[in-house]
Amino acid sequence: MAYQKGDGKSVVIALGGNALGNTPQEQLELVRNTAVHIVDMIAEGINVVLSHGNGPQVGMINNAFDYASEHDGKTPEMPFPECGAMSQGYIGYQLSQAILNELKRRSIMRSTAAVITQTVVYPEDPAFQNPTKPVGPFLTEEEAKKRAAETGATYKEDSGRGWRMVVASPKPQRIVELDAIKDLMDDGYIVIAAGGGGVPVIERDDSYHGVAAVIDKDRTSAKLAADFHADMLVILTAVEKVAINFNTPEQKNIDTMTVAEAQKYIEEGQFAPGSMLPKIQACLEYLEAHPTGKALITSLDHAAEGLKGETGTIITA
Amino acid sequence: MAYQKGDGKSVVIALGGNALGNTPQEQLELVRNTAVHIVDMIAEGINVVLSHGNGPQVGMINNAFDYASEHDGKTPEMPFPECGAMSQGYIGYQLSQAILNELKRRSIMRSTAAVITQTVVYPEDPAFQNPTKPVGPFLTEEEAKKRAAETGATYKEDSGRGWRMVVASPKPQRIVELDAIKDLMDDGYIVIAAGGGGVPVIERDDSYHGVAAVIDKDRTSAKLAADFHADMLVILTAVEKVAINFNTPEQKNIDTMTVAEAQKYIEEGQFAPGSMLPKIQACLEYLEAHPTGKALITSLDHAAEGLKGETGTIITA
Repeated sequence: MAYQKGDGKSVVIALGGNALGNTPQEQLELVRNTAVHIVDMIAEGINVVLSHGNGPQVGMINNAFDYASEHDGKTPEMPFPECGAMSQGYIGYQLSQAILNELKRRSIMRSTAAVITQTVVYPEDPAFQNPTKPVGPFLTEEEAKKRAAETGATYKEDSGRGWRMVVASPKPQRIVELDAIKDLMDDGYIVIAAGGGGVPVIERDDSYHGVAAVIDKDRTSAKLAADFHADMLVILTAVEKVAINFNTPEQKNIDTMTVAEAQKYIEEGQFAPGSMLPKIQACLEYLEAHPTGKALITSLDHAAEGLKGETGTIITA
Repeated sequence: MAYQKGDGKSVVIALGGNALGNTPQEQLELVRNTAVHIVDMIAEGINVVLSHGNGPQVGMINNAFDYASEHDGKTPEMPFPECGAMSQGYIGYQLSQAILNELKRRSIMRSTAAVITQTVVYPEDPAFQNPTKPVGPFLTEEEAKKRAAETGATYKEDSGRGWRMVVASPKPQRIVELDAIKDLMDDGYIVIAAGGGGVPVIERDDSYHGVAAVIDKDRTSAKLAADFHADMLVILTAVEKVAINFNTPEQKNIDTMTVAEAQKYIEEGQFAPGSMLPKIQACLEYLEAHPTGKALITSLDHAAEGLKGETGTIITA
């Protein structure tokens, strides 16, 4: 094939939810802009695996099936892992197409491949003892208790707005399609994979089985990057640089930090749980497993500069 | 990697809709059985690309979104190409998992990869002048005319049951992810691709754009098989062998036929339009492009025998 390849530097990029949209039309617009920035990075000659979040999208799919199956008398109930797989198809298709179109526009002879990805989690992961991630529609207390009794799922009251199913967010242990993803990346494809952190599966009787859970996409990306010794993990988020004393007069943006410095800041409570903290932790998990790697946290529109070392926050062992 | 590879014989298998189910639970059961037969074929040492239909599944997804977006006040309308991409995620995930589990059960060290696939069609394809494939929910005449005016889509009255959107079934011209699919197959992966014939896209201003259409999965499979010179195209259907004088006292099952013989039977009207005829035509398209290939039509449970030449109908140039 006449495809170009990267220069061999391998990079796993985790795309934040803000790079996608809440409706298909909105997403189609947003991914065009996302593709420009991703191709700016690709133009630097790297080999890429691109992962992405799926929170709003899997929620939309789950809601649509939930509502239709409840009311239309013919739509079946759709299990949560299958909704996740659908979201990978939906986002993977639009993202792959947008990147291909941007590559064509710039006459860059590279191609994309979106791979449906499963991620193994442990059934004994402590997260399953205390599910916390709300997914799906708001229900009345009565509906929630009825469904809990029927399905064994956990429902919790959500901030006075109603009852919702809550699922666990277990740790990603292994990416089932790791080798296919790596082989495609080594062949020069821009691989879109591990969408939404991967469809969570457990191993039972030496078989994979889908399980209702959500996996943090940054952690799955870190695991991917660690498992194939990627040269770099890039986590894209809303800010150009990580900061300490965030939103105070003493705010200080960080250009580089070591794992030890990051851990000190974590102990000081510098990073917001559910926001910057899990991103930093994902970087540390990657660097612990692959100490010669580099982790970069920056925003989508600064990503290409960040890759060249010109901005963003770099974390090293 | 410690993966085994096939012996180099490359086979494209097109799986019929009867190998999947109408609900997620039904499909999960059915794909387990499907996986047994597919792995029986893989155990013969072949390299495989597996494509599949998506008629009932894309219909279910389209219906669910249509109903929810109409009634729940928050679900967005979902374009048909995106529904197709979701169906690839949904089916690809379950099929890939079932085949992996069956491979593990038999200690066959091979792996799977499901690739989201786009298929290029020509906007000037005559099929777009006369859309015939009904998709989505039944509407009243008034609703249908309102939507037609809003979206430009075509709606037709369907056998006294109501009005439905009809889309074209254009000819597949090119599979966008062809190289990735072939590279994965050559690396020994069981590649699940071109689900539902691929998400139909047109090229405009040197960009891909999704289009509401359905592509015959057997024709896309034939195109895939032709484009990478696969040694064999296997179309799985409900019957063990193709027959002439079907369902008459003179019924005769066919073991082998040439392209010329098949064309003679087609002229005689031996094969039912919308049923066996398009499968035969897909085989002829493959053999025309790749005359040294072999096409096999048989049922899922006779597929492994058919591969060994013990049953089914073989068509050669």
